[in-house]
Amino acid sequence: MNTPFDQLTDSIRQLPGIGPRQARRIAYFIVRKDKSWVHSLSETLRQARAEVAECMWCRRLFPTAYAAPACTVCTDSSRDAHTLLVVEKDVDLENVEKTGVYTGRYFVLGGTVSLLDKEPEKKVRIRSLEQLIFNKDRDVREIILALSATTEGEDTAVFLKERLTPLLQNHPLTLRVLGRGLSTGTELEYVDADTMQSALKGRT
Amino acid sequence: MNTPFDQLTDSIRQLPGIGPRQARRIAYFIVRKDKSWVHSLSETLRQARAEVAECMWCRRLFPTAYAAPACTVCTDSSRDAHTLLVVEKDVDLENVEKTGVYTGRYFVLGGTVSLLDKEPEKKVRIRSLEQLIFNKDRDVREIILALSATTEGEDTAVFLKERLTPLLQNHPLTLRVLGRGLSTGTELEYVDADTMQSALKGRT
Amino acid sequence: MNTPFDQLTDSIRQLPGIGPRQARRIAYFIVRKDKSWVHSLSETLRQARAEVAECMWCRRLFPTAYAAPACTVCTDSSRDAHTLLVVEKDVDLENVEKTGVYTGRYFVLGGTVSLLDKEPEKKVRIRSLEQLIFNKDRDVREIILALSATTEGEDTAVFLKERLTPLLQNHPLTLRVLGRGLSTGTELEYVDADTMQSALKGRT
Amino acid sequence: MNTPFDQLTDSIRQLPGIGPRQARRIAYFIVRKDKSWVHSLSETLRQARAEVAECMWCRRLFPTAYAAPACTVCTDSSRDAHTLLVVEKDVDLENVEKTGVYTGRYFVLGGTVSLLDKEPEKKVRIRSLEQLIFNKDRDVREIILALSATTEGEDTAVFLKERLTPLLQNHPLTLRVLGRGLSTGTELEYVDADTMQSALKGRT
Repeated sequence: MNTPFDQLTDSIRQLPGIGPRQARRIAYFIVRKDKSWVHSLSETLRQARAEVAECMWCRRLFPTAYAAPACTVCTDSSRDAHTLLVVEKDVDLENVEKTGVYTGRYFVLGGTVSLLDKEPEKKVRIRSLEQLIFNKDRDVREIILALSATTEGEDTAVFLKERLTPLLQNHPLTLRVLGRGLSTGTELEYVDADTMQSALKGRT
Repeated sequence: MNTPFDQLTDSIRQLPGIGPRQARRIAYFIVRKDKSWVHSLSETLRQARAEVAECMWCRRLFPTAYAAPACTVCTDSSRDAHTLLVVEKDVDLENVEKTGVYTGRYFVLGGTVSLLDKEPEKKVRIRSLEQLIFNKDRDVREIILALSATTEGEDTAVFLKERLTPLLQNHPLTLRVLGRGLSTGTELEYVDADTMQSALKGRT
Repeated sequence: MNTPFDQLTDSIRQLPGIGPRQARRIAYFIVRKDKSWVHSLSETLRQARAEVAECMWCRRLFPTAYAAPACTVCTDSSRDAHTLLVVEKDVDLENVEKTGVYTGRYFVLGGTVSLLDKEPEKKVRIRSLEQLIFNKDRDVREIILALSATTEGEDTAVFLKERLTPLLQNHPLTLRVLGRGLSTGTELEYVDADTMQSALKGRT
Repeated sequence: MNTPFDQLTDSIRQLPGIGPRQARRIAYFIVRKDKSWVHSLSETLRQARAEVAECMWCRRLFPTAYAAPACTVCTDSSRDAHTLLVVEKDVDLENVEKTGVYTGRYFVLGGTVSLLDKEPEKKVRIRSLEQLIFNKDRDVREIILALSATTEGEDTAVFLKERLTPLLQNHPLTLRVLGRGLSTGTELEYVDADTMQSALKGRT
C-alpha cells in the first residue's frame, strides 16, 4: 500500500536536486513537525502559487500583489528599454539582477533546446519572444542571448540565431551573444581551447 | 514586502540539507507547476501529517492506516521481544531494517544530547524509554545502544548509560553498545587510534 | 625525440598518486631549481635506497644505520613477542605504530592478492610469514590479520586463512582477524549490512 | 637521527601538491624498488637538469639538445613575431600551445606579484621582458598579458601595466590583456558580477 507518507516522499523526490535519502529525511522532518507548522507550509504552497503571475512581457514570474500584468523590471521606465537580455530561467534573471551590472530588460525563455529536438519551439517560449521583439511599443533594438556556456546553452543559442536572423533582416534590430573569455577563477594552466580562442579574440 | 513566494523560499530553506540557492530553485520549480500539481502537493503534506502516529512503544512514526496504537515491528510476534535497539531517529531505524540483520525491536530516541546540556532529558525521550524497558508486558532483557560513532552519538551513549545503569541494578536487564572496529572501507593506512584499539580488542 | 626532461616526467608519473599534469608541474619545479639542489635530491635518492634493509623477521624496511639484520620493533624485548600483526605494507605498520595501541610485533606482507590470482603466493611474502611463525626462537602464539576492510584486504585474508589453517592444526597458534564494527565516524543512517552485522555480534 | 630515508621524505614533501602522507608513500615506493631503478631515476634527475637551458628570449626552459640559445618557438620563423603573450609559468605556455589557437610568441614571467610586495621586480622577470620588447631585432608590436583571472594574476597584470605603460609611450607598441567573459562551463545562475560585466561589454 502506498501511504500518504510514501506519496510525500515521492513528491519531494521530484524537486530539483533532491536524492532519495534526502527526500526521506525531509519527509520525516515534516511529519515530525506540529500540525500547525505543516498546515502553514501547506497553505504557503497554495498562496505562493496563487499569488504569482507570469509577466506579459518578459515571462518571468512575479508577485500578483502589484496588481499589474507586467513585472517591475518591464514597467520601470528608468531601465534601458532598447536592450533585451534573453535568459533561460527565472533564477538566471535573479542572479543577473543581483550582479547589478545590467540596466536593460529581460526575456525568460523557460528552457533550453537540443539540436536533436524535433520540435524545439515547444520547449522554449520562442513565439512570445518574437511577439515581444516586434512589438513597436516595446521598442527593442538589441537582443543579447545570455545563455550558459554549456552544450545546452550553446545549442539553444544556435536555435535562436537560426530562427531570429531571417526575421530581423528588415528590422533595425541587432542580435548579439554574451562575450566569451576568461571568467573569474580561470587559470591559464587549465584553460580550454574555446575559452582561450575567445579570450585572444576579445583582448582589450 | 515579504511575498508568499518569499515565505515559500524561507520555509524550504528550513528543510534539512537545503541551502539558499537550492531553496530558491525549488520555490520557482513549484510555482512554475500547474495549480493542480501544487494543490495536490499541499494536500499530500496535510494528509501525510494527519495519517501518521507515533508508536506507543518505540516512538517511531508509522501510518495510522493500521488503526493500531503500535507499529508493525512492535506488534510483530515473530520478532525477538527481548532485545531493544535504541537509535537516534526514524531514518536510522529504517536503514537498520533495510540491512536485514537485526531481528529484535527498536526505540527511537528522537535526538542526541551533548555532555554540556543542562537539561538533556528534554532533548531525548528518556522517560518513554524508561517506561518501555520496565514495562513487564514488553519483557525487554537486553538494551543495545545503537548510536553513531560521532561525538554526538558518544555523548548520548554516555548520558544513557549514566541514567540507566543505576535503574538496572535490580533488574535482569543487560545494557550493551554496538561493537566498534573496522567498518566496510576502513584502510589500515588511515585507521585512527580509537578504531584500531576496538578492532584489536574485538579480534575474532 | 624523448628528452631527459620527458623521461623525468615519465618517471614522476610512475610514483603513486601522481597524475599527468602534476607530473609535469613537478618536473618543471625540479629543473627550475639550482643544479646543487637537484644533485642533492639525486644523491638523497641513492643514499635512501642504499641505507635501508629489509628486516629479516618482519620484512619492513628499516635504516641500515642500526647495523643489525632486524628492525627495532623485532629486536625490542619490551614488546610482546607472542603476538604478530600481519599488515599489507610499510605505511600500514607506521600508522598502527602511530596509534600507539598495539604492543606486539608485525609482519609486512608486501601486497594483496585477489581470489582470481593464479599464483597468489608470488604477490605476497607468504613463505617468509610461514618461516617466521614456525621459527621456535620467535615464539609466536597468535597471528592477527590486520588487512583493510576492502575487497583486496578481504580476499587477502581469505587466502592467508586457507593457506595457514591446515599448517596450524598441530601448533599452539591462534589465527585471528581484526574486529569489524562501527569505526569512528560511522553513522547509523548510512551503515551497511556487513558493518551492522559485525557491530551487533560484537556488542559489548 | 635524521636518516637518508627521512631526508628523502622531506625532499618529496617540497614538491608541488604533495602532502605528508603521500610523501611517505612515495618514499617507500622508491626505496622498495631495485637499486638499478633508483639509480636510473637519480641519473634522470641530473640529466634532465643538465640538459635544459632557459631560452634567451622567452625564458622558458627547453632541451639543450637543440644546441641553440633560443627555443623552437622563438626561432620558428613561421610564427607571428609581432605578438608576445606574457604568461606566468612554463606549464601555462605548454597548455596554451596545446590549445593550438595562438600563433605568436611568448614570454614566461616566472611568477606573480602581489600589490603588497615591496620589491615586485625581484619576483618576476620584468627586466628580461623589457629587454625583449625593446629589442629591435625581435620587432614586438603587441604585448598580450595572459595571466590567470585570480587575485595573483590580476595583481601581476596591474604591476606590469604600471611598469610598462610609461615605457611604451614613444613606441609603436600596444599593451593588451586577454578578454574576460563566460568561459566554458559558466552558468548564468552562478555568474559573478565581474564576469557578467565583461561578458556584457564583450558581447559579439
